[in-house]
Amino acid sequence: MPRVFVDEPITPGARHTVGGEDGHHYARVLRVRRGEVLAVASGGRAYRCEVAAVDARAGRVDIVVGDPLPPAEPRRPVFLLQGLAKGDKIESVIQHNTEAGAAGFCVLAAARSVVRLDARRAEERCVRWRRVAREAAAQAQRDIVPEVGFAGQLDQAMAWLSARGVARVLLLDELESARGFRQALEEASAGEGGGAAIAVAVGPEGGWDDRERTRFLELGAVAVTLGPRILRTETAGLAAVSAILYHDGEFRR
Amino acid sequence: MPRVFVDEPITPGARHTVGGEDGHHYARVLRVRRGEVLAVASGGRAYRCEVAAVDARAGRVDIVVGDPLPPAEPRRPVFLLQGLAKGDKIESVIQHNTEAGAAGFCVLAAARSVVRLDARRAEERCVRWRRVAREAAAQAQRDIVPEVGFAGQLDQAMAWLSARGVARVLLLDELESARGFRQALEEASAGEGGGAAIAVAVGPEGGWDDRERTRFLELGAVAVTLGPRILRTETAGLAAVSAILYHDGEFRR
Repeated sequence: MPRVFVDEPITPGARHTVGGEDGHHYARVLRVRRGEVLAVASGGRAYRCEVAAVDARAGRVDIVVGDPLPPAEPRRPVFLLQGLAKGDKIESVIQHNTEAGAAGFCVLAAARSVVRLDARRAEERCVRWRRVAREAAAQAQRDIVPEVGFAGQLDQAMAWLSARGVARVLLLDELESARGFRQALEEASAGEGGGAAIAVAVGPEGGWDDRERTRFLELGAVAVTLGPRILRTETAGLAAVSAILYHDGEFRR
Repeated sequence: MPRVFVDEPITPGARHTVGGEDGHHYARVLRVRRGEVLAVASGGRAYRCEVAAVDARAGRVDIVVGDPLPPAEPRRPVFLLQGLAKGDKIESVIQHNTEAGAAGFCVLAAARSVVRLDARRAEERCVRWRRVAREAAAQAQRDIVPEVGFAGQLDQAMAWLSARGVARVLLLDELESARGFRQALEEASAGEGGGAAIAVAVGPEGGWDDRERTRFLELGAVAVTLGPRILRTETAGLAAVSAILYHDGEFRR
């Protein structure tokens, strides 16, 4: 069943008109037809919906909202703080981690990020990254579209995560003092806000620099390791997010 | 410390001449210098080695083999049986899973694989995939280069895994009867050959077909799920391999 997202709230049993950008997308790009059944997600929940009418010229689709579908979201939200990397790596990171189940992404212009984005280009990238997240979320049958933010400064990134209820940030790093990943997860569950959202912080290609390390730890992050193998920036996030979701018992129906 | 692999056995305390393709690579491509310290891996173990002499013209490097380095390999080998996918997806899969710690890859021409490779092209691809594995293993500081094989038939792929000591194959699938990933791992550890190698089987873009499902189960594979979210073929393997390595306690020093 193809899955689509709508921004407005929908009510089970009611008939809704989807217009605007979504309506245009469904009527003219996906070309849905009357009678077709879609999974329509809104406000963090997906419903089985039937297409009641299509006005392709106006870009409007009428749907009748049916039963809610089983939830597809992890119980504990897992965020990724990703150091800005080169090329289209951020797109891949967002795509793969959205499929796996990440709750959202904050891309940080880190000290060793090679790419520099001014405010206008950062906003353009965010628009593109959000589109990637939305498409991947639909493909993966998620109930939400993961949020994507951009931070020019480390403190901003940590504030972005805090504002989303993140109680613990796991800093992937090569520090000698880094904890094993399971130990860090068990400590996070045992501490205050055990069930609260969690985040993984992955450096850019060159890793974190010493000032960033210090600042992360000052702000309460915990240095963790994925073991003796060196993972690239585009690989580490998915390995860590997958381990957390597995730890949380999410890799089952 | 840059890491290199050599095919011949090396002995701690001895002086070795690295010639052939490796010698050419180190002397003329990497341009190592006398006195430089390298991590040289051979036969599943890496040693701290000093470059004693370089003959760039002949493509030969002399090394003095020092102390062994701490092992970087997971205790239980984790293999990936990957359905042949389009474009350069297999390269990405091999690169990312080699970084994470996979022991080897068998690429299977699955029923729904869109790409068709004759024997000559399959061999060409294997050469390229093996180069990707070797480069990723060096970058990730692995002690081994993961093996890469190609199978035209499902039974061949299962035999390839058996020959490498794989006692349990986890078939990633959307079957209703699929077990949760943790349950399957716990059952595998409890059964015969608990500490033996394990494999994950990931279908191509269109997934497995019914004949393949049946055959996998006949050959002893266990259907497993990563949860309600749908992961793409290039994402699922890394999520599953990461979960196994986390389960095995490998995400620590």
